Amino acid sequence: MIEQRLQLLIDARLAAWCDALPHTGLYEPMRYLLGLPAKRVRPALVLLGCELFGGRAEDALDEAIGLELFHNFTLVHDDIMDAAPLRRGRPTVHERSGVNAAILSGDALLVKAYPLMARRPDVLALFGRTALQVCEGQQADMEFERRDDVRLAEYDAMIRLKTAVLLGCALRTGALVANAPAGDAALIGDFGEHLGLAFQLRDDLLDAFGDAATMGKQQGGDLRAGKKTWLMIRALERAAEERWGLLREELAKPPAARDVARMRAAIEQLGVRAEAEAEVVRHDGAARAALAAIAVPEPRKAPLHALAAALLDRAH
Amino acid sequence: MIEQRLQLLIDARLAAWCDALPHTGLYEPMRYLLGLPAKRVRPALVLLGCELFGGRAEDALDEAIGLELFHNFTLVHDDIMDAAPLRRGRPTVHERSGVNAAILSGDALLVKAYPLMARRPDVLALFGRTALQVCEGQQADMEFERRDDVRLAEYDAMIRLKTAVLLGCALRTGALVANAPAGDAALIGDFGEHLGLAFQLRDDLLDAFGDAATMGKQQGGDLRAGKKTWLMIRALERAAEERWGLLREELAKPPAARDVARMRAAIEQLGVRAEAEAEVVRHDGAARAALAAIAVPEPRKAPLHALAAALLDRAH
Repeated sequence: MIEQRLQLLIDARLAAWCDALPHTGLYEPMRYLLGLPAKRVRPALVLLGCELFGGRAEDALDEAIGLELFHNFTLVHDDIMDAAPLRRGRPTVHERSGVNAAILSGDALLVKAYPLMARRPDVLALFGRTALQVCEGQQADMEFERRDDVRLAEYDAMIRLKTAVLLGCALRTGALVANAPAGDAALIGDFGEHLGLAFQLRDDLLDAFGDAATMGKQQGGDLRAGKKTWLMIRALERAAEERWGLLREELAKPPAARDVARMRAAIEQLGVRAEAEAEVVRHDGAARAALAAIAVPEPRKAPLHALAAALLDRAH
Repeated sequence: MIEQRLQLLIDARLAAWCDALPHTGLYEPMRYLLGLPAKRVRPALVLLGCELFGGRAEDALDEAIGLELFHNFTLVHDDIMDAAPLRRGRPTVHERSGVNAAILSGDALLVKAYPLMARRPDVLALFGRTALQVCEGQQADMEFERRDDVRLAEYDAMIRLKTAVLLGCALRTGALVANAPAGDAALIGDFGEHLGLAFQLRDDLLDAFGDAATMGKQQGGDLRAGKKTWLMIRALERAAEERWGLLREELAKPPAARDVARMRAAIEQLGVRAEAEAEVVRHDGAARAALAAIAVPEPRKAPLHALAAALLDRAH
């Protein structure tokens, strides 16, 4: 989904960065985590944001790597909080090196990200704001796990903070490095945020209704786990309006006993699948409208249109 | 030990900072931790560093608060790693709000520190280097807990990174805000580092040999716990040279059964108490030599001489 040209640039710079790390206990978990195969979406967005405004991708590589380090910092700490055993198919840092080493090497990753984000004051200020929003989103996500009354608007706000703003920040960072006008930089940030929201919803839909064979993972895993996705929260709201207890009945069972097909059918009958699909279309439209409003030659926008299409049309 | 004038400035700015925080889950643990009584040594050093070079304390308050936020970030995460139940006589953040909330609000404290440290590129660069050193020091400290062969030189390097560099950074930050020449800023940083090392050693000595009545805490607590302090590491080195098994005998017992008086006598007979006291004098001398080399009117140095005297002569 990301052009190989950019992927190679990112991989080379990241490998050089890892090679330059000291060989001591603090840095070993970083090297492990950054060595796992990953899509590098955020650094690629930085480079695309830079090129959109006529900058050279090479000139935004520091910031691209900085955001990837920040993203990996969030992965290490989130995995501790979620007690997740696996990340990218391999043991998480805390499983491998212990919680204490994971906390500390996560902290150090965040510290290492900053100088790469500090070459321009506008980029640094944007990064600081975004980093705080990501923390706020993670906090809301944790609080939602303990609540049964999360409203859709709260969920949307949480997902925006936890995942979408960082995608917007990546594109906007690249734009700033290329000296884009402030308004255009804000627009490409909006493009990234809406794309992120659309992508997240698409992911929920695929989990519930996607084709298990092409996805390569268990269909309905989120449903079985009773995960509070957009689909589930909206379906419970709709079910309450309709005085319809079926979904709550399934959620009251232990996960292994849940009838996923019945849950899926309920979500569909409540009209929530259609609502979610309409929401994807709405975010996709908002993203493309932001892109359309940016005053650069249209051919330069082609990679971003292609990225949006690849993110949203993918079958897995 | 810190002039009330500076204390009031710091407390007022910190209270205003806390009042401006949103009332949501991410910020509540910060407000709690920063509301606990504390000496605010690091922010005071920032202000003293600024005034030494003719700056106004008010002009360095942002950086003073920034370093206090950073220091509190390290406290929250270190307390998780040490499974410490109490901090400043009150429940630690992770005891009170859970480990996950403590990890995350610690992260957010670090993020909130950065904009306050980013008003000048030289301060930001110094802060980034120092933050990484503090992480390295904490990592070494954790590794030492699992090792029985820690050498004195390694221990010195760890303590320098974990505690002394931040004190040096505080003074140097204040100096930079006051536009001190780079060489003078480095010298006042050296003053702070040596003072920190002297203070740490003095603390170890007081725990082992101080007067329990004036200290207000159990004498010999570190000895009973078998804590690897400078005294213990050096005493074990000396005991090995002398083929003298007494200390290892005591350490082999469970803490409650250890004869602290016997351990104390051993440290004294091995000459380690005298060595530690000489080391305090050495660091104090190096600190004052650095201060002497700074070309500002002597009367301006009085508060720093007073601070050094108060830190090192204190009976508790």
